[in-house]
Amino acid sequence: MRHTLKIAARGLVPGLAAALAAGPALAQEPTSGVSPETGFILTSFMFLVTGFLVMWMAAGFAMLEAGLVRSKNAAMQCLKNLSLFAIAAIIYYLVGYKLMYPGDGWTIASVLGDFGAAVLEPVGVGAEAVDLSSASVGSDFFFQLMFCATTASIVSGALAERIRLWPFLAFIVVLTALIYPIQASWKWGGGFLDADFGFLDFAGSTVVHSVGGWAALAGALILGPRLGKYAKGGKINPMPGSNLTLATLGTFILWLGWFGFNGGSQLYMNSAGNVADISRIFANTNAAAAGGVVAALAATQLLYRRVDLTMVLNGALAGLVSITAEPLTPSLGQATLIGAVGGVIVVFAVPLLDRLRIDDVVGAIPVHLFAGIWGTLAVLLTNSEATFFGQLAPIAIVGLFVFAASGAVWLVIDKTMGIRATPEHEMAGLDSSELGMEAYPEFGKGSQFI
Amino acid sequence: MRHTLKIAARGLVPGLAAALAAGPALAQEPTSGVSPETGFILTSFMFLVTGFLVMWMAAGFAMLEAGLVRSKNAAMQCLKNLSLFAIAAIIYYLVGYKLMYPGDGWTIASVLGDFGAAVLEPVGVGAEAVDLSSASVGSDFFFQLMFCATTASIVSGALAERIRLWPFLAFIVVLTALIYPIQASWKWGGGFLDADFGFLDFAGSTVVHSVGGWAALAGALILGPRLGKYAKGGKINPMPGSNLTLATLGTFILWLGWFGFNGGSQLYMNSAGNVADISRIFANTNAAAAGGVVAALAATQLLYRRVDLTMVLNGALAGLVSITAEPLTPSLGQATLIGAVGGVIVVFAVPLLDRLRIDDVVGAIPVHLFAGIWGTLAVLLTNSEATFFGQLAPIAIVGLFVFAASGAVWLVIDKTMGIRATPEHEMAGLDSSELGMEAYPEFGKGSQFI
Amino acid sequence: MRHTLKIAARGLVPGLAAALAAGPALAQEPTSGVSPETGFILTSFMFLVTGFLVMWMAAGFAMLEAGLVRSKNAAMQCLKNLSLFAIAAIIYYLVGYKLMYPGDGWTIASVLGDFGAAVLEPVGVGAEAVDLSSASVGSDFFFQLMFCATTASIVSGALAERIRLWPFLAFIVVLTALIYPIQASWKWGGGFLDADFGFLDFAGSTVVHSVGGWAALAGALILGPRLGKYAKGGKINPMPGSNLTLATLGTFILWLGWFGFNGGSQLYMNSAGNVADISRIFANTNAAAAGGVVAALAATQLLYRRVDLTMVLNGALAGLVSITAEPLTPSLGQATLIGAVGGVIVVFAVPLLDRLRIDDVVGAIPVHLFAGIWGTLAVLLTNSEATFFGQLAPIAIVGLFVFAASGAVWLVIDKTMGIRATPEHEMAGLDSSELGMEAYPEFGKGSQFI
Repeated sequence: MRHTLKIAARGLVPGLAAALAAGPALAQEPTSGVSPETGFILTSFMFLVTGFLVMWMAAGFAMLEAGLVRSKNAAMQCLKNLSLFAIAAIIYYLVGYKLMYPGDGWTIASVLGDFGAAVLEPVGVGAEAVDLSSASVGSDFFFQLMFCATTASIVSGALAERIRLWPFLAFIVVLTALIYPIQASWKWGGGFLDADFGFLDFAGSTVVHSVGGWAALAGALILGPRLGKYAKGGKINPMPGSNLTLATLGTFILWLGWFGFNGGSQLYMNSAGNVADISRIFANTNAAAAGGVVAALAATQLLYRRVDLTMVLNGALAGLVSITAEPLTPSLGQATLIGAVGGVIVVFAVPLLDRLRIDDVVGAIPVHLFAGIWGTLAVLLTNSEATFFGQLAPIAIVGLFVFAASGAVWLVIDKTMGIRATPEHEMAGLDSSELGMEAYPEFGKGSQFI
Repeated sequence: MRHTLKIAARGLVPGLAAALAAGPALAQEPTSGVSPETGFILTSFMFLVTGFLVMWMAAGFAMLEAGLVRSKNAAMQCLKNLSLFAIAAIIYYLVGYKLMYPGDGWTIASVLGDFGAAVLEPVGVGAEAVDLSSASVGSDFFFQLMFCATTASIVSGALAERIRLWPFLAFIVVLTALIYPIQASWKWGGGFLDADFGFLDFAGSTVVHSVGGWAALAGALILGPRLGKYAKGGKINPMPGSNLTLATLGTFILWLGWFGFNGGSQLYMNSAGNVADISRIFANTNAAAAGGVVAALAATQLLYRRVDLTMVLNGALAGLVSITAEPLTPSLGQATLIGAVGGVIVVFAVPLLDRLRIDDVVGAIPVHLFAGIWGTLAVLLTNSEATFFGQLAPIAIVGLFVFAASGAVWLVIDKTMGIRATPEHEMAGLDSSELGMEAYPEFGKGSQFI
Repeated sequence: MRHTLKIAARGLVPGLAAALAAGPALAQEPTSGVSPETGFILTSFMFLVTGFLVMWMAAGFAMLEAGLVRSKNAAMQCLKNLSLFAIAAIIYYLVGYKLMYPGDGWTIASVLGDFGAAVLEPVGVGAEAVDLSSASVGSDFFFQLMFCATTASIVSGALAERIRLWPFLAFIVVLTALIYPIQASWKWGGGFLDADFGFLDFAGSTVVHSVGGWAALAGALILGPRLGKYAKGGKINPMPGSNLTLATLGTFILWLGWFGFNGGSQLYMNSAGNVADISRIFANTNAAAAGGVVAALAATQLLYRRVDLTMVLNGALAGLVSITAEPLTPSLGQATLIGAVGGVIVVFAVPLLDRLRIDDVVGAIPVHLFAGIWGTLAVLLTNSEATFFGQLAPIAIVGLFVFAASGAVWLVIDKTMGIRATPEHEMAGLDSSELGMEAYPEFGKGSQFI
């Protein structure tokens, strides 16, 4: 359990503190409270349950993005999302996990020395051979892996409909092997953002969401907009999503998965205090998403005189991103308002990006980057341990690193493999041109929008 | 934990009774069994897991309803379902939760006094500061909130394809702030239906499902049928759902979520007896849904010489509603039969409503109201503590209150805002006329059915 | 708890062994570790959580198959999947569960004697009345039922688009009443494959997946290919799936559900060792699926110069089937490779079946039968207790039994009811001809592929 650091920075939870103070007596049943082995089981199982919820978010991203692209690219979007999740799983195991938790420092041995060896506990491990104050390493690995995969999922939506499959997957390899784990180690691996800045980012508004957003932004700038999206004279051509019921499903899936994302980041469920905190987090996460929905509803009605479903979907997601840096300390009302600000950010940021001619197909940059920054700063509102500099500087440091590193990787891949589909392929759609298939061969007339 | 009352009415579960009898010794580890703090964690976590399953039902309703409307209204149906869930979350927090559990009685202070204040335990609460015989307040709130949202979800399907967005959402505000919580307090808040009638409604065949059904019925009568649905001379025009795979997905989601709905209503998982009861409930809930499916399969084959998928989907849901008032006491065989009766009810009730020219787009009234009444009466078959009067009178009282209150609210909203879309908007579909978008802009030829 | 045998064959887990050795002292709280009642709750709740994940796989099969058939059969495919799950639930309760765990031998009394009686514990059972070293019977039943239903789900995809509804459901009755439980009893009910062969099949690569595959193969041979699938001169007509985003969703659902399928098969969560093992299983299951995806990606790119989404979807599933016989002992790297081999098998087996003119609409036979055999043999690679003969002979015995029994049942049903739709019905699609409805009445031009 290496995330101990995250929670330790906020003061040890009562049950754990008592357990740790007890020292060698850990193997003895306390006269009241939770036995260490029971606590170990509870925390490990909590990681497995919240971990599978976060895994489910991969399906949410796939459905959201497949629903928001035109049908000629829907199969490709599904393929990218499934593939990136699989690649993240393998690469994070081979490289990322070790890199993220370097222990006494990064060495070739520590990072690659375990290539192929057992990361997990031995089969049938005994209670005496594990750290009962923590959780099963396997459950921790499972949970952490899903965060790395989520970061990768964010990128695919922004670059949809014009990036080629293999160059995209090449970027995912670097993102999950190096970019994500290195910066995550700065905070969650006990690095300088945690130790020197007192940076607070409970479940990753910055460490996960803004990172995905920065990587997507760098890619979108280098890749350029879809053909015909921005016409001469400033006209912006709408390219509506082909399947909004699917996009809605994706949003509901992400909402559900987020309970795991934020709730599991409590990292312990071995005391009454911890489970009460996890309960707060679940309730606050839900409240923030609700705030994002209602804010986006109201904002689009006021601005455009009509509600926009895709804005409301993104409003929900922005609410969720906004509460992710601090889902524990806000009251329900505060959580609702923090999420609502996220929803408003999206409504203003989506057209702003279009005016800047940055083509983000699904709104990933407003949702994950802009609301991620907001959420990281919003920690200041409810957590007295946060400092303005301690929040702002890490946002900038992480942003600079990820944007620069991603940009460099995108450029290298572009020079070597070429990231952009040919105009012919893009016009025909990546499904037929790259995959030789259609997502909906029987359904339609095709898009009127190029 | 205010639902203690619900379970207390059925006799305290052994483990809990022992714990309560122990009195001040609660802080001491018992020489056998489950320590109070461990029990607190287990029950709280059970609420979180079953709560997220019930939250997932919101996605199920969205998919079911979006699949059963014509494609020109599918985006609107998604929007309504997402929005009503968000509104329920906020309003239930602001008003409903307090109103539902009035404690020593309703006062302005008790209901609105906590506006914006902490409903949940403080962050990092200690084991000594919570009631270890119960669950985290946050987990209870999270779980209860989902029941309120479910009630609201039921309404949206019946009124689909012709009700305007904002008037619909205005009704949801009143439903989740007042109508649902007030009547729920009568049973689950320790009110007169619980105390004076001995009314038994384990997870809400009446308190949730029939309430949604009554509110939908009042709305459907005031709103009127869709244009062209009922032609002169008694002809009923079919208006088939546009996406039956999506409707099937919604049904599976609801089936899954129902394990949380019924299972979590056990309210405790701090003893072997409680977890055995929850296991019974899971198995019985599944059996009743299966019974509903097979009954609807058989009934449609016998009546119409061919099976009807939408009837079978609703058969599953009717089976689930039927077992909700008492998922614990039946045997597996009894649960199957109780669900099967629900499936048959749907097959007969759907055409009956059409003959009455009550246009219920998705069959919500047969499923949630009719099967909800059946399920509430079916408690008499397996639970000897139930009395006929004690079941029937509350069905009528709740029905009268909800139908009258909902009707009044619908009428007020109609007079002030106007609930019905214009004929032009309705013919064009609410997606393009109200939202300016299409759910499937590339797919189709549109419905042949007006 | 009858699966004790499965785990006992691998050596009792430490916590359980200690508990059992303690004998009458079980009712006493141990001075350290997990109290028996807490362990009972934890294991039971684990079964409920993993059980609902496996139930969710039914939705995954439904979406996968509905997405891979032509739209004219999509409603029927949904109906079959929902109905088979319901039938499995009822029949497994009435017959299968008893047959699978015969105790002292099969007698009419033991199998049918409990018809309608309580399989589950009594309501409000006391801790003293249950076996605290195990789990609630209800949770075990719920979990085991889902495995039977999964076996049935496998069959429906292979035979899609030409088998009639009721004959198909008749087969499901026999499969879930007799064929599945009888062979499952040979391994998981303590039968001769377990006792005499030392056969190892942790979660059912053979007992579940190959059984579904054999039953499907027998059916496919007797049913024959879809009209026009195999033209004269050896030409194979593609009949592409109508909704690949739905098929992708189905794959993600199955991936998620598989954590429950494999993880729950640990059967105990009452010690640190057990939860660490379950964590290993979750991580390995995920790794194998990832391996299957990447292998199918690479293999289709190398073989066909373009990636095929449906192959990648099936690659994920084949990876999952491959690890199912032994998800515990492999390292993460081994699990990835075992899954990768499964992915490659699918890429080669799908065209092989086509060359043999065996029409498997969704690739169920490559995924569940071929990868199931591979997975059962792959136990030899990482579990030293497995013997080549002990793995191979049961594969053959189960295969022979299921193929012969299924073939006989299919033939009987064909002679009596007729299993194949008429050519007119098949050409029109089963949705309109058998059900009188369309899955997507507004969407499309219909398939160009007959």
